Amino acid sequence: MVSAIAEAQRYCKVHVAGDAGGEYTRVPPQTELRFSAGAAYAHYTPNETISGVEFGYVPETRSVPLVADMSSSILSRPIDVSKFGLIYAGAQKNIGPSGLVVVIVRDDLIGHARTETPLVFDYKAAADASSMLNTPPTFAWYMAGLVFKWLKRTGGLAGAGERNRVKAETLYAAIDASSLYKNPIARDARSWMNVTFTLNKPGLDAAFLAQAAHAGLHGLKGHRVLGGMRASIYNAMPLAGVEALIAFMREFERQHA
Amino acid sequence: MVSAIAEAQRYCKVHVAGDAGGEYTRVPPQTELRFSAGAAYAHYTPNETISGVEFGYVPETRSVPLVADMSSSILSRPIDVSKFGLIYAGAQKNIGPSGLVVVIVRDDLIGHARTETPLVFDYKAAADASSMLNTPPTFAWYMAGLVFKWLKRTGGLAGAGERNRVKAETLYAAIDASSLYKNPIARDARSWMNVTFTLNKPGLDAAFLAQAAHAGLHGLKGHRVLGGMRASIYNAMPLAGVEALIAFMREFERQHA
Repeated sequence: MVSAIAEAQRYCKVHVAGDAGGEYTRVPPQTELRFSAGAAYAHYTPNETISGVEFGYVPETRSVPLVADMSSSILSRPIDVSKFGLIYAGAQKNIGPSGLVVVIVRDDLIGHARTETPLVFDYKAAADASSMLNTPPTFAWYMAGLVFKWLKRTGGLAGAGERNRVKAETLYAAIDASSLYKNPIARDARSWMNVTFTLNKPGLDAAFLAQAAHAGLHGLKGHRVLGGMRASIYNAMPLAGVEALIAFMREFERQHA
Repeated sequence: MVSAIAEAQRYCKVHVAGDAGGEYTRVPPQTELRFSAGAAYAHYTPNETISGVEFGYVPETRSVPLVADMSSSILSRPIDVSKFGLIYAGAQKNIGPSGLVVVIVRDDLIGHARTETPLVFDYKAAADASSMLNTPPTFAWYMAGLVFKWLKRTGGLAGAGERNRVKAETLYAAIDASSLYKNPIARDARSWMNVTFTLNKPGLDAAFLAQAAHAGLHGLKGHRVLGGMRASIYNAMPLAGVEALIAFMREFERQHA
């Protein structure tokens, strides 16, 4: 978010409509959001991957177009596209290989690019050329197509949402029921995609990660700026993977009780 | 080239230093090039893929940095990188999957981005972050790495250059020796990567393409703006593929003599 603000400030005046207030353990409710008058658009990232905080609601911005970076949440559950002016999402979480960005933009917002916008970033040029203004990332497109077909076969976004809800709730319940693991995020702001937790006993992190890797559970180290643990359970992670993690966590807690 | 000029004109005054003069059947020699005084850089595309025209020399630009779009010629033969200020190349011809661009830029040319340059297009930001400013296209990187290893195993760029020279010379020789096929490009400007030819007898194009496809020879239709035939013989095409094409061309000519 800080990076997004810094980049936006190079092109326009940025007004922060809402902030979690220091630590990212909650999402500001609609009543706390203060939009500036006459904003060109309001930007937010529904899911924050470092702490594992996710908006449980879509902000109401009235006539201001809502722009969302859905890189880490798209396809994780049904969304009402009509509420958004523009949605963009890097493919690498729930869509396919990295190197592809999907953009869904409202027709009336196309064609207003700043003069200095490089042609390849001009949505009108991209739309006019059916997204083939230049050679597209063909392999990533192909893989994304296979992922879309897989999602359709497995109940669409409703099915994905139900699977992700169960995965997240099961993991958070196991964390909350333990005395070793802790997740500080407010219940209504817990990410379905990135579940973070810390160990209450100091000095156990390295052992946890090593034994987890030995048990075939990889990539659990938290983001470098936050430390702790993070289980990223994107669409590709089945419930069985979450259950394997929980079984390992319980056994590790028993050993270190 | 016309697209490159149009895009550049949005940011700077463009002076065309040399032109093939209407039809792209030759490359202007060094003596015809007229560089403007005080240019920030000189840009050219060593290989033109539509007509199949390729520079047989690297233009001398004195103190003006030379910028080259090598998308369709990089890795096809050894190049003296020290002659260039900046080389960029889309991966999809000789490097790997589309969606990746390789940039080689002289140290002293980094750090002069225009104020409005998006951060992801700022070479300084990319270099400072070891090309991992944002999530890189990992699969394309990995495949490119395999291609680089393959090139090293097979004689490096000297080996590739020798293979490509033989492939191109063999195909042009077959075209020149026939009475049905014709390539209008000046001998010193014929592309090693894209060999174009037309059929002297009208109305045979569709039959040629259909029978070629039947014989397992695909993608021979010329670029839509030019028509005719085009054999793109990038690094991935072995000499055996060129020989199969020649054998088919001879048989087709015999049938239609």
